[in-house]
Amino acid sequence: MEYYRFKLNFKVRDYECDLSGIVNNAVYQHYLEHARHEYLKSQGVGFAELEKQGITLVVIRIEMDFLYPLRSGDQFFVGLNTERISRLRFGFLQDIYRLPDEKPILSAKVVGTALNEKGRPRLPAEIQELIASSLELDASGG
Amino acid sequence: MEYYRFKLNFKVRDYECDLSGIVNNAVYQHYLEHARHEYLKSQGVGFAELEKQGITLVVIRIEMDFLYPLRSGDQFFVGLNTERISRLRFGFLQDIYRLPDEKPILSAKVVGTALNEKGRPRLPAEIQELIASSLELDASGG
Amino acid sequence: MEYYRFKLNFKVRDYECDLSGIVNNAVYQHYLEHARHEYLKSQGVGFAELEKQGITLVVIRIEMDFLYPLRSGDQFFVGLNTERISRLRFGFLQDIYRLPDEKPILSAKVVGTALNEKGRPRLPAEIQELIASSLELDASGG
Amino acid sequence: MEYYRFKLNFKVRDYECDLSGIVNNAVYQHYLEHARHEYLKSQGVGFAELEKQGITLVVIRIEMDFLYPLRSGDQFFVGLNTERISRLRFGFLQDIYRLPDEKPILSAKVVGTALNEKGRPRLPAEIQELIASSLELDASGG
Repeated sequence: MEYYRFKLNFKVRDYECDLSGIVNNAVYQHYLEHARHEYLKSQGVGFAELEKQGITLVVIRIEMDFLYPLRSGDQFFVGLNTERISRLRFGFLQDIYRLPDEKPILSAKVVGTALNEKGRPRLPAEIQELIASSLELDASGG
Repeated sequence: MEYYRFKLNFKVRDYECDLSGIVNNAVYQHYLEHARHEYLKSQGVGFAELEKQGITLVVIRIEMDFLYPLRSGDQFFVGLNTERISRLRFGFLQDIYRLPDEKPILSAKVVGTALNEKGRPRLPAEIQELIASSLELDASGG
Repeated sequence: MEYYRFKLNFKVRDYECDLSGIVNNAVYQHYLEHARHEYLKSQGVGFAELEKQGITLVVIRIEMDFLYPLRSGDQFFVGLNTERISRLRFGFLQDIYRLPDEKPILSAKVVGTALNEKGRPRLPAEIQELIASSLELDASGG
Repeated sequence: MEYYRFKLNFKVRDYECDLSGIVNNAVYQHYLEHARHEYLKSQGVGFAELEKQGITLVVIRIEMDFLYPLRSGDQFFVGLNTERISRLRFGFLQDIYRLPDEKPILSAKVVGTALNEKGRPRLPAEIQELIASSLELDASGG
Protein backbone atom coordinates (compact mmCIF):
# COMPACT_ATOMS: atom_id res chain seq x y z
CA MET A 1 0.00 0.00 0.00
CA GLU A 2 1.05 3.51 -0.84
CA TYR A 3 2.23 6.16 1.57
CA TYR A 4 -0.51 8.71 2.44
CA ARG A 5 -0.13 12.22 3.84
CA PHE A 6 -3.37 11.84 5.72
CA LYS A 7 -5.60 8.99 6.76
CA LEU A 8 -9.03 8.99 8.33
CA ASN A 9 -10.83 5.99 9.81
CA PHE A 10 -14.56 5.37 9.34
CA LYS A 11 -17.13 2.69 10.01
CA VAL A 12 -20.05 1.99 7.68
CA ARG A 13 -23.40 2.97 9.17
CA ASP A 14 -26.47 0.93 8.21
CA TYR A 15 -28.33 3.90 6.74
CA GLU A 16 -25.50 4.31 4.22
CA CYS A 17 -26.32 0.95 2.65
CA ASP A 18 -28.99 0.61 0.01
CA LEU A 19 -31.39 -2.00 -1.31
CA SER A 20 -28.56 -4.13 -2.65
CA GLY A 21 -27.08 -4.51 0.84
CA ILE A 22 -23.94 -2.52 0.11
CA VAL A 23 -22.86 1.09 0.62
CA ASN A 24 -24.61 3.30 -1.94
CA ASN A 25 -22.18 4.69 -4.53
CA ALA A 26 -22.93 8.32 -3.69
CA VAL A 27 -21.98 7.75 -0.06
CA TYR A 28 -18.34 7.21 -1.05
CA GLN A 29 -18.29 10.81 -2.22
CA HIS A 30 -19.36 11.82 1.28
CA TYR A 31 -16.53 9.79 2.79
CA LEU A 32 -14.03 11.38 0.41
CA GLU A 33 -15.35 14.90 1.06
CA HIS A 34 -15.21 14.45 4.82
CA ALA A 35 -11.61 13.19 4.59
CA ARG A 36 -10.58 16.17 2.41
CA HIS A 37 -12.18 18.67 4.78
CA GLU A 38 -10.58 17.04 7.82
CA TYR A 39 -7.22 17.09 6.05
CA LEU A 40 -7.55 20.78 5.18
CA LYS A 41 -8.58 21.62 8.74
CA SER A 42 -5.59 19.63 10.06
CA GLN A 43 -3.42 21.89 7.89
CA GLY A 44 -5.01 25.06 9.19
CA VAL A 45 -7.08 25.71 6.06
CA GLY A 46 -10.54 26.77 7.19
CA PHE A 47 -13.46 27.22 4.85
CA ALA A 48 -14.89 30.02 6.99
CA GLU A 49 -11.60 31.98 6.91
CA LEU A 50 -11.24 31.54 3.16
CA GLU A 51 -14.81 32.74 2.67
CA LYS A 52 -14.00 35.93 4.57
CA GLN A 53 -11.29 36.50 1.94
CA GLY A 54 -13.95 35.90 -0.70
CA ILE A 55 -12.48 32.57 -1.73
CA THR A 56 -14.41 29.36 -2.32
CA LEU A 57 -12.81 25.99 -2.86
CA VAL A 58 -14.65 24.01 -5.51
CA VAL A 59 -14.45 20.54 -6.94
CA ILE A 60 -14.45 20.61 -10.74
CA ARG A 61 -13.93 16.93 -11.55
CA ILE A 62 -14.19 13.58 -9.82
CA GLU A 63 -13.05 10.19 -11.10
CA MET A 64 -13.85 7.14 -9.01
CA ASP A 65 -13.04 3.48 -9.60
CA PHE A 66 -15.25 1.22 -7.55
CA LEU A 67 -13.14 -1.86 -6.81
CA TYR A 68 -15.09 -3.72 -4.16
CA PRO A 69 -18.18 -2.85 -2.11
CA LEU A 70 -18.27 -1.98 1.59
CA ARG A 71 -20.99 -3.58 3.69
CA SER A 72 -22.83 -2.82 6.92
CA GLY A 73 -20.44 -2.55 9.83
CA ASP A 74 -17.23 -2.57 7.75
CA GLN A 75 -14.38 -0.49 9.05
CA PHE A 76 -12.16 1.34 6.57
CA PHE A 77 -9.91 4.30 6.05
CA VAL A 78 -9.57 6.99 3.43
CA GLY A 79 -5.95 7.72 2.46
CA LEU A 80 -5.17 11.07 0.84
CA ASN A 81 -2.37 12.59 -1.19
CA THR A 82 -2.28 15.94 -3.02
CA GLU A 83 -0.72 17.04 -6.28
CA ARG A 84 -0.40 20.20 -8.34
CA ILE A 85 -2.15 19.75 -11.67
CA SER A 86 -1.68 23.19 -13.18
CA ARG A 87 -1.17 26.78 -12.08
CA LEU A 88 -4.78 26.96 -10.88
CA ARG A 89 -5.74 23.35 -10.28
CA PHE A 90 -4.82 20.88 -7.58
CA GLY A 91 -5.69 17.25 -7.14
CA PHE A 92 -6.55 14.97 -4.26
CA LEU A 93 -5.67 11.33 -4.80
CA GLN A 94 -7.92 9.42 -2.43
CA ASP A 95 -8.11 5.70 -1.85
CA ILE A 96 -10.35 3.66 0.41
CA TYR A 97 -9.17 0.42 2.04
CA ARG A 98 -11.22 -1.91 4.21
CA LEU A 99 -9.86 -2.66 7.67
CA PRO A 100 -8.18 -4.66 8.98
CA ASP A 101 -7.39 -6.58 5.76
CA GLU A 102 -6.54 -3.47 3.68
CA LYS A 103 -8.58 -4.74 0.73
CA PRO A 104 -8.75 -1.92 -1.86
CA ILE A 105 -12.31 -0.59 -2.10
CA LEU A 106 -12.17 2.60 -4.15
CA SER A 107 -9.60 4.75 -5.90
CA ALA A 108 -10.43 8.36 -6.70
CA LYS A 109 -8.99 11.52 -8.15
CA VAL A 110 -10.67 14.77 -7.18
CA VAL A 111 -9.67 17.96 -9.00
CA GLY A 112 -10.26 21.29 -7.32
CA THR A 113 -9.68 24.97 -7.78
CA ALA A 114 -10.43 28.11 -5.81
CA LEU A 115 -12.69 30.89 -7.03
CA ASN A 116 -12.62 34.53 -5.98
CA GLU A 117 -15.71 36.68 -5.54
CA LYS A 118 -16.00 37.24 -9.28
CA GLY A 119 -16.01 33.49 -9.90
CA ARG A 120 -12.49 33.58 -11.34
CA PRO A 121 -9.94 30.90 -10.34
CA ARG A 122 -7.37 32.15 -7.80
CA LEU A 123 -5.39 29.84 -5.55
CA PRO A 124 -4.99 31.33 -2.07
CA ALA A 125 -1.57 31.22 -0.38
CA GLU A 126 -2.66 28.51 2.05
CA ILE A 127 -3.49 26.12 -0.75
CA GLN A 128 -0.35 26.98 -2.74
CA GLU A 129 1.76 26.17 0.30
CA LEU A 130 0.00 22.87 0.87
CA ILE A 131 0.65 21.81 -2.69
CA ALA A 132 4.25 23.06 -2.65
CA SER A 133 4.93 21.01 0.47
CA SER A 134 3.39 18.08 -1.31
CA LEU A 135 5.85 18.47 -4.18
CA GLU A 136 8.82 18.62 -1.81
CA LEU A 137 7.58 15.50 -0.15
CA ASP A 138 7.48 13.76 -3.49
CA ALA A 139 10.91 15.09 -4.49
CA SER A 140 12.38 13.68 -1.29
CA GLY A 141 10.86 10.32 -2.08
CA GLY A 142 8.13 10.62 0.55
CA MET B 1 -59.24 10.91 3.83
CA GLU B 2 -58.97 14.36 5.33
CA TYR B 3 -59.02 17.65 3.47
CA TYR B 4 -55.52 19.12 2.98
CA ARG B 5 -54.55 22.75 2.26
CA PHE B 6 -51.60 21.57 0.25
CA LYS B 7 -50.52 18.33 -1.41
CA LEU B 8 -47.28 17.38 -3.07
CA ASN B 9 -46.64 14.24 -5.14
CA PHE B 10 -43.43 12.24 -4.92
CA LYS B 11 -41.97 8.97 -6.18
CA VAL B 12 -39.59 6.85 -4.10
CA ARG B 13 -36.06 6.79 -5.51
CA ASP B 14 -33.99 3.62 -5.05
CA TYR B 15 -31.22 5.40 -3.13
CA GLU B 16 -33.80 6.34 -0.48
CA CYS B 17 -34.32 2.68 0.42
CA ASP B 18 -32.03 0.92 2.85
CA LEU B 19 -30.81 -2.59 3.60
CA SER B 20 -34.26 -3.73 4.62
CA GLY B 21 -35.65 -2.90 1.17
CA ILE B 22 -37.89 -0.08 2.36
CA VAL B 23 -37.55 3.70 2.57
CA ASN B 24 -35.21 4.62 5.43
CA ASN B 25 -37.04 6.29 8.30
CA ALA B 26 -34.99 9.49 8.13
CA VAL B 27 -35.96 9.99 4.49
CA TYR B 28 -39.57 10.63 5.49
CA GLN B 29 -38.34 13.73 7.29
CA HIS B 30 -36.87 14.90 4.00
CA TYR B 31 -40.19 14.35 2.25
CA LEU B 32 -42.01 16.28 4.98
CA GLU B 33 -39.49 19.14 4.92
CA HIS B 34 -39.66 19.46 1.16
CA ALA B 35 -43.47 19.57 1.28
CA ARG B 36 -43.41 22.27 4.00
CA HIS B 37 -40.94 24.41 2.06
CA GLU B 38 -42.92 24.07 -1.16
CA TYR B 39 -46.08 25.00 0.71
CA LEU B 40 -44.46 28.09 2.23
CA LYS B 41 -43.08 29.14 -1.17
CA SER B 42 -46.55 28.66 -2.70
CA GLN B 43 -47.82 31.11 -0.08
CA GLY B 44 -45.13 33.68 -0.83
CA VAL B 45 -43.09 32.93 2.29
CA GLY B 46 -39.44 32.86 1.25
CA PHE B 47 -36.62 31.76 3.52
CA ALA B 48 -34.20 34.18 1.89
CA GLU B 49 -36.55 37.15 2.44
CA LEU B 50 -37.16 36.18 6.07
CA GLU B 51 -33.42 35.91 6.62
CA LYS B 52 -32.96 39.46 5.36
CA GLN B 53 -35.34 40.49 8.16
CA GLY B 54 -33.17 38.47 10.54
CA ILE B 55 -35.79 35.79 11.02
CA THR B 56 -35.19 32.05 10.92
CA LEU B 57 -37.95 29.45 10.90
CA VAL B 58 -37.04 26.50 13.06
CA VAL B 59 -38.55 23.13 13.85
CA ILE B 60 -38.64 22.50 17.59
CA ARG B 61 -40.49 19.19 17.73
CA ILE B 62 -41.43 16.35 15.41
CA GLU B 63 -43.77 13.44 16.09
CA MET B 64 -44.07 10.75 13.46
CA ASP B 65 -46.16 7.59 13.40
CA PHE B 66 -44.87 5.09 10.88
CA LEU B 67 -47.92 3.20 9.68
CA TYR B 68 -46.70 1.27 6.67
CA PRO B 69 -43.45 1.30 4.69
CA LEU B 70 -42.91 2.75 1.23
CA ARG B 71 -40.88 0.70 -1.24
CA SER B 72 -38.78 1.32 -4.33
CA GLY B 73 -40.81 2.98 -7.07
CA ASP B 74 -43.87 3.70 -4.91
CA GLN B 75 -45.74 6.90 -5.70
CA PHE B 76 -47.21 8.91 -2.85
CA PHE B 77 -48.26 12.35 -1.73
CA VAL B 78 -47.68 14.45 1.36
CA GLY B 79 -50.82 16.26 2.58
CA LEU B 80 -50.37 19.31 4.81
CA ASN B 81 -52.50 21.33 7.19
CA THR B 82 -51.42 24.09 9.59
CA GLU B 83 -52.57 25.06 13.05
CA ARG B 84 -51.78 27.67 15.68
CA ILE B 85 -50.43 26.01 18.79
CA SER B 86 -49.66 29.05 20.96
CA ARG B 87 -48.79 32.72 20.54
CA LEU B 88 -45.34 31.79 19.27
CA ARG B 89 -45.74 28.28 17.96
CA PHE B 90 -47.40 26.85 14.90
CA GLY B 91 -47.91 23.29 13.77
CA PHE B 92 -47.84 21.43 10.49
CA LEU B 93 -49.99 18.33 10.37
CA GLN B 94 -48.52 16.20 7.63
CA ASP B 95 -49.68 12.83 6.36
CA ILE B 96 -48.28 10.56 3.68
CA TYR B 97 -50.50 8.34 1.53
CA ARG B 98 -49.36 5.87 -1.08
CA LEU B 99 -50.79 6.31 -4.57
CA PRO B 100 -53.03 5.33 -6.16
CA ASP B 101 -54.57 3.27 -3.33
CA GLU B 102 -54.30 6.04 -0.67
CA LYS B 103 -52.97 3.60 1.90
CA PRO B 104 -51.85 5.64 4.96
CA ILE B 105 -48.07 5.50 5.32
CA LEU B 106 -47.12 8.10 7.91
CA SER B 107 -48.77 10.68 10.12
CA ALA B 108 -46.70 13.54 11.52
CA LYS B 109 -46.96 16.68 13.58
CA VAL B 110 -44.19 19.22 13.16
CA VAL B 111 -44.01 22.15 15.58
CA GLY B 112 -42.19 25.28 14.53
CA THR B 113 -41.41 28.76 15.67
CA ALA B 114 -39.49 31.73 14.29
CA LEU B 115 -36.40 33.22 15.91
CA ASN B 116 -35.09 36.76 15.56
CA GLU B 117 -31.40 37.67 15.40
CA LYS B 118 -31.07 37.37 19.17
CA GLY B 119 -32.45 33.84 19.09
CA ARG B 120 -35.77 34.92 20.67
CA PRO B 121 -39.06 33.60 19.27
CA ARG B 122 -40.91 36.15 17.09
CA LEU B 123 -43.53 35.17 14.53
CA PRO B 124 -43.24 37.31 11.39
CA ALA B 125 -46.40 38.77 9.85
CA GLU B 126 -46.30 36.36 6.89
CA ILE B 127 -46.48 33.35 9.19
CA GLN B 128 -49.16 34.91 11.43
CA GLU B 129 -51.33 35.49 8.37
CA LEU B 130 -50.87 31.95 7.15
CA ILE B 131 -51.98 30.56 10.46
CA ALA B 132 -54.87 33.02 10.80
CA SER B 133 -56.17 31.97 7.38
CA SER B 134 -55.83 28.40 8.56
CA LEU B 135 -58.04 29.14 11.57
CA GLU B 136 -60.71 30.75 9.40
CA LEU B 137 -60.64 27.74 7.18
CA ASP B 138 -61.25 25.50 10.15
CA ALA B 139 -64.00 27.77 11.52
CA SER B 140 -65.83 27.54 8.21
CA GLY B 141 -65.60 23.80 8.33
CA GLY B 142 -62.88 23.58 5.64
CA MET C 1 -26.96 14.63 33.07
CA GLU C 2 -28.75 11.31 33.22
CA TYR C 3 -27.18 7.88 33.38
CA TYR C 4 -27.12 6.10 29.99
CA ARG C 5 -26.78 2.37 29.27
CA PHE C 6 -24.94 3.14 26.08
CA LYS C 7 -23.16 6.12 24.59
CA LEU C 8 -21.73 6.68 21.15
CA ASN C 9 -19.48 9.56 20.08
CA PHE C 10 -19.83 11.34 16.75
CA LYS C 11 -18.46 14.36 14.92
CA VAL C 12 -20.57 16.46 12.55
CA ARG C 13 -19.49 16.12 8.92
CA ASP C 14 -19.87 19.13 6.63
CA TYR C 15 -22.18 17.33 4.19
CA GLU C 16 -24.66 16.80 7.05
CA CYS C 17 -25.22 20.57 7.33
CA ASP C 18 -27.71 22.34 5.12
CA LEU C 19 -28.30 25.78 3.66
CA SER C 20 -28.89 27.29 7.08
CA GLY C 21 -25.42 26.27 8.25
CA ILE C 22 -26.62 23.74 10.81
CA VAL C 23 -27.14 19.98 10.81
CA ASN C 24 -30.27 19.13 8.80
CA ASN C 25 -33.09 17.85 11.02
CA ALA C 26 -33.34 14.50 9.24
CA VAL C 27 -29.67 13.78 9.93
CA TYR C 28 -30.40 13.51 13.66
CA GLN C 29 -32.54 10.49 12.85
CA HIS C 30 -29.50 8.94 11.20
CA TYR C 31 -27.42 9.58 14.32
CA LEU C 32 -30.11 8.04 16.52
CA GLU C 33 -30.51 5.02 14.25
CA HIS C 34 -26.78 4.37 14.12
CA ALA C 35 -26.56 4.58 17.93
CA ARG C 36 -29.48 2.13 18.32
CA HIS C 37 -27.96 -0.35 15.88
CA GLU C 38 -24.55 -0.14 17.57
CA TYR C 39 -26.19 -0.66 20.93
CA LEU C 40 -28.08 -3.71 19.71
CA LYS C 41 -24.93 -5.17 18.16
CA SER C 42 -23.05 -4.54 21.41
CA GLN C 43 -25.72 -6.66 23.11
CA GLY C 44 -25.43 -9.47 20.60
CA VAL C 45 -28.66 -8.64 18.76
CA GLY C 46 -27.95 -8.93 15.05
CA PHE C 47 -30.39 -7.87 12.36
CA ALA C 48 -29.16 -10.60 10.03
CA GLU C 49 -29.72 -13.33 12.67
CA LEU C 50 -33.18 -12.01 13.50
CA GLU C 51 -34.06 -11.99 9.82
CA LYS C 52 -33.14 -15.66 9.56
CA GLN C 53 -35.77 -16.27 12.25
CA GLY C 54 -38.19 -14.24 10.13
CA ILE C 55 -38.20 -11.32 12.54
CA THR C 56 -37.87 -7.67 11.60
CA LEU C 57 -37.39 -4.86 14.12
CA VAL C 58 -39.40 -1.81 13.13
CA VAL C 59 -39.78 1.71 14.41
CA ILE C 60 -43.43 2.67 14.77
CA ARG C 61 -43.16 6.11 16.34
CA ILE C 62 -40.53 8.81 16.83
CA GLU C 63 -40.77 11.95 18.96
CA MET C 64 -37.90 14.42 18.79
CA ASP C 65 -37.41 17.71 20.60
CA PHE C 66 -34.84 19.88 18.89
CA LEU C 67 -33.20 21.91 21.67
CA TYR C 68 -30.19 23.48 20.04
CA PRO C 69 -28.53 23.01 16.63
CA LEU C 70 -25.25 21.23 15.94
CA ARG C 71 -22.83 22.92 13.55
CA SER C 72 -19.99 21.87 11.25
CA GLY C 73 -17.20 20.15 13.19
CA ASP C 74 -19.14 19.83 16.46
CA GLN C 75 -18.43 16.75 18.51
CA PHE C 76 -21.29 15.10 20.38
CA PHE C 77 -22.57 11.86 21.81
CA VAL C 78 -25.86 10.00 21.69
CA GLY C 79 -26.92 8.55 25.06
CA LEU C 80 -29.41 5.67 25.06
CA ASN C 81 -31.73 4.02 27.54
CA THR C 82 -34.44 1.43 26.91
CA GLU C 83 -37.85 0.84 28.40
CA ARG C 84 -40.71 -1.60 28.07
CA ILE C 85 -43.81 0.20 26.86
CA SER C 86 -46.24 -2.69 26.55
CA ARG C 87 -46.20 -6.43 25.96
CA LEU C 88 -45.19 -5.90 22.36
CA ARG C 89 -43.59 -2.48 22.33
CA PHE C 90 -40.28 -1.19 23.60
CA GLY C 91 -38.84 2.29 23.71
CA PHE C 92 -35.45 3.85 23.20
CA LEU C 93 -34.89 7.10 25.06
CA GLN C 94 -32.13 8.85 23.17
CA ASP C 95 -30.52 12.19 23.94
CA ILE C 96 -27.81 14.10 22.13
CA TYR C 97 -25.29 16.29 23.97
CA ARG C 98 -22.59 18.45 22.41
CA LEU C 99 -19.04 17.82 23.58
CA PRO C 100 -17.19 18.84 25.59
CA ASP C 101 -19.70 21.23 27.16
CA GLU C 102 -22.57 18.69 27.36
CA LYS C 103 -25.07 21.22 26.03
CA PRO C 104 -28.36 19.38 25.38
CA ILE C 105 -29.05 19.24 21.63
CA LEU C 106 -31.90 16.81 21.14
CA SER C 107 -34.15 14.57 23.18
CA ALA C 108 -35.97 11.70 21.50
CA LYS C 109 -38.22 8.77 22.18
CA VAL C 110 -38.27 5.99 19.61
CA VAL C 111 -40.90 3.28 19.89
CA GLY C 112 -40.29 -0.08 18.25
CA THR C 113 -41.75 -3.49 17.88
CA ALA C 114 -40.79 -6.70 16.13
CA LEU C 115 -42.79 -8.29 13.34
CA ASN C 116 -42.82 -11.94 12.31
CA GLU C 117 -43.10 -13.16 8.73
CA LYS C 118 -46.84 -12.57 8.70
CA GLY C 119 -46.37 -8.94 9.74
CA ARG C 120 -47.70 -9.63 13.26
CA PRO C 121 -45.92 -8.19 16.31
CA ARG C 122 -43.79 -10.76 18.15
CA LEU C 123 -40.93 -9.79 20.45
CA PRO C 124 -38.00 -12.21 20.09
CA ALA C 125 -36.29 -13.55 23.22
CA GLU C 126 -33.19 -11.40 22.66
CA ILE C 127 -35.22 -8.21 22.79
CA GLN C 128 -37.32 -9.37 25.76
CA GLU C 129 -34.12 -10.03 27.70
CA LEU C 130 -32.68 -6.64 26.84
CA ILE C 131 -35.76 -4.89 28.12
CA ALA C 132 -36.01 -7.09 31.21
CA SER C 133 -32.42 -6.25 32.11
CA SER C 134 -33.32 -2.64 31.59
CA LEU C 135 -36.14 -2.94 34.14
CA GLU C 136 -33.83 -4.54 36.70
CA LEU C 137 -31.38 -1.75 36.19
CA ASP C 138 -34.10 0.78 36.89
CA ALA C 139 -35.34 -1.14 39.91
CA SER C 140 -31.85 -1.11 41.39
CA GLY C 141 -31.70 2.63 40.89
CA GLY C 142 -29.28 2.43 37.93
CA MET D 1 -27.66 20.47 -26.97
CA GLU D 2 -27.19 16.84 -27.80
CA TYR D 3 -29.89 14.31 -28.53
CA TYR D 4 -30.71 12.08 -25.52
CA ARG D 5 -32.41 8.67 -25.49
CA PHE D 6 -33.96 9.46 -22.15
CA LYS D 7 -34.59 12.57 -20.10
CA LEU D 8 -35.84 12.97 -16.56
CA ASN D 9 -36.91 16.23 -14.91
CA PHE D 10 -36.06 17.11 -11.31
CA LYS D 11 -36.30 20.03 -8.91
CA VAL D 12 -33.66 20.74 -6.27
CA ARG D 13 -34.91 20.15 -2.74
CA ASP D 14 -33.54 22.35 0.05
CA TYR D 15 -32.14 19.42 2.03
CA GLU D 16 -29.92 18.57 -0.95
CA CYS D 17 -28.04 21.85 -0.56
CA ASP D 18 -25.14 22.16 1.84
CA LEU D 19 -23.40 24.84 3.89
CA SER D 20 -22.17 26.62 0.79
CA GLY D 21 -25.74 27.16 -0.42
CA ILE D 22 -25.45 24.88 -3.43
CA VAL D 23 -26.33 21.26 -4.15
CA ASN D 24 -23.80 18.98 -2.44
CA ASN D 25 -21.55 17.20 -4.95
CA ALA D 26 -22.60 13.72 -3.82
CA VAL D 27 -26.25 14.51 -4.50
CA TYR D 28 -25.55 14.69 -8.24
CA GLN D 29 -24.68 11.00 -8.08
CA HIS D 30 -28.13 10.39 -6.64
CA TYR D 31 -29.73 12.31 -9.50
CA LEU D 32 -27.70 10.32 -12.04
CA GLU D 33 -28.51 7.00 -10.38
CA HIS D 34 -32.23 7.75 -10.25
CA ALA D 35 -32.22 8.69 -13.95
CA ARG D 36 -30.38 5.47 -14.88
CA HIS D 37 -32.79 3.33 -12.89
CA GLU D 38 -35.82 5.06 -14.38
CA TYR D 39 -34.37 4.61 -17.84
CA LEU D 40 -33.76 0.90 -17.26
CA LYS D 41 -37.28 0.44 -15.88
CA SER D 42 -38.69 2.29 -18.91
CA GLN D 43 -36.90 -0.31 -21.06
CA GLY D 44 -38.30 -3.23 -19.10
CA VAL D 45 -35.06 -3.97 -17.25
CA GLY D 46 -35.95 -4.68 -13.62
CA PHE D 47 -33.38 -5.07 -10.86
CA ALA D 48 -35.59 -7.55 -9.03
CA GLU D 49 -35.97 -9.75 -12.12
CA LEU D 50 -32.24 -9.67 -12.84
CA GLU D 51 -31.55 -10.63 -9.24
CA LYS D 52 -33.77 -13.69 -9.61
CA GLN D 53 -31.45 -14.71 -12.47
CA GLY D 54 -28.53 -14.12 -10.09
CA ILE D 55 -27.36 -11.03 -11.94
CA THR D 56 -26.37 -7.74 -10.34
CA LEU D 57 -25.71 -4.55 -12.29
CA VAL D 58 -22.78 -2.68 -10.82
CA VAL D 59 -21.09 0.64 -11.45
CA ILE D 60 -17.33 0.23 -11.75
CA ARG D 61 -16.27 3.78 -12.66
CA ILE D 62 -17.71 7.28 -12.57
CA GLU D 63 -16.27 10.45 -14.09
CA MET D 64 -18.05 13.72 -13.37
CA ASP D 65 -17.24 17.23 -14.54
CA PHE D 66 -18.91 19.84 -12.36
CA LEU D 67 -19.58 22.79 -14.67
CA TYR D 68 -21.88 25.02 -12.67
CA PRO D 69 -23.73 24.58 -9.36
CA LEU D 70 -27.45 24.03 -8.89
CA ARG D 71 -29.19 26.01 -6.15
CA SER D 72 -32.28 25.67 -3.99
CA GLY D 73 -35.42 25.46 -6.11
CA ASP D 74 -33.63 25.07 -9.45
CA GLN D 75 -35.33 22.87 -12.00
CA PHE D 76 -33.20 20.68 -14.24
CA PHE D 77 -33.13 17.51 -16.29
CA VAL D 78 -30.77 14.59 -16.61
CA GLY D 79 -30.19 13.49 -20.21
CA LEU D 80 -28.91 9.96 -20.84
CA ASN D 81 -27.26 8.07 -23.65
CA THR D 82 -25.71 4.58 -23.61
CA GLU D 83 -22.70 3.08 -25.32
CA ARG D 84 -20.93 -0.26 -25.52
CA ILE D 85 -17.44 0.05 -24.10
CA SER D 86 -16.23 -3.53 -24.39
CA ARG D 87 -17.64 -7.04 -24.49
CA LEU D 88 -18.53 -6.85 -20.81
CA ARG D 89 -18.78 -3.13 -20.12
CA PHE D 90 -21.34 -0.52 -21.03
CA GLY D 91 -21.41 3.19 -20.46
CA PHE D 92 -24.02 5.77 -19.54
CA LEU D 93 -23.28 9.27 -20.78
CA GLN D 94 -25.29 11.54 -18.51
CA ASP D 95 -25.55 15.31 -18.59
CA ILE D 96 -27.44 17.71 -16.38
CA TYR D 97 -28.91 20.96 -17.68
CA ARG D 98 -30.70 23.61 -15.67
CA LEU D 99 -34.20 24.56 -16.81
CA PRO D 100 -35.48 26.53 -18.52
CA ASP D 101 -32.22 28.10 -19.73
CA GLU D 102 -30.46 24.76 -20.48
CA LYS D 103 -27.28 25.93 -18.81
CA PRO D 104 -24.88 22.94 -18.62
CA ILE D 105 -24.42 21.86 -15.00
CA LEU D 106 -22.66 18.51 -15.03
CA SER D 107 -21.32 16.02 -17.53
CA ALA D 108 -20.74 12.42 -16.46
CA LYS D 109 -19.68 9.06 -17.75
CA VAL D 110 -20.74 6.05 -15.73
CA VAL D 111 -19.27 2.64 -16.59
CA GLY D 112 -21.13 -0.48 -15.56
CA THR D 113 -21.03 -4.20 -15.86
CA ALA D 114 -23.16 -7.11 -14.71
CA LEU D 115 -21.97 -9.79 -12.32
CA ASN D 116 -23.29 -13.33 -11.98
CA GLU D 117 -23.62 -15.20 -8.69
CA LYS D 118 -19.91 -16.02 -8.66
CA GLY D 119 -19.00 -12.35 -9.02
CA ARG D 120 -17.90 -12.84 -12.64
CA PRO D 121 -18.91 -10.30 -15.31
CA ARG D 122 -21.76 -11.52 -17.55
CA LEU D 123 -23.99 -9.19 -19.53
CA PRO D 124 -27.61 -10.40 -19.53
CA ALA D 125 -29.56 -10.41 -22.78
CA GLU D 126 -31.69 -7.44 -21.74
CA ILE D 127 -28.63 -5.23 -21.35
CA GLN D 128 -27.01 -6.50 -24.55
CA GLU D 129 -30.15 -5.60 -26.47
CA LEU D 130 -30.29 -2.14 -24.96
CA ILE D 131 -26.75 -1.41 -26.00
CA ALA D 132 -27.18 -2.92 -29.44
CA SER D 133 -30.18 -0.70 -30.06
CA SER D 134 -28.03 2.19 -28.91
CA LEU D 135 -25.43 1.35 -31.55
CA GLU D 136 -28.05 1.22 -34.28
CA LEU D 137 -29.30 4.58 -33.18
CA ASP D 138 -25.82 5.99 -33.48
CA ALA D 139 -25.26 4.35 -36.86
CA SER D 140 -28.42 5.96 -38.18
CA GLY D 141 -27.24 9.32 -36.94
CA GLY D 142 -29.66 9.47 -34.01
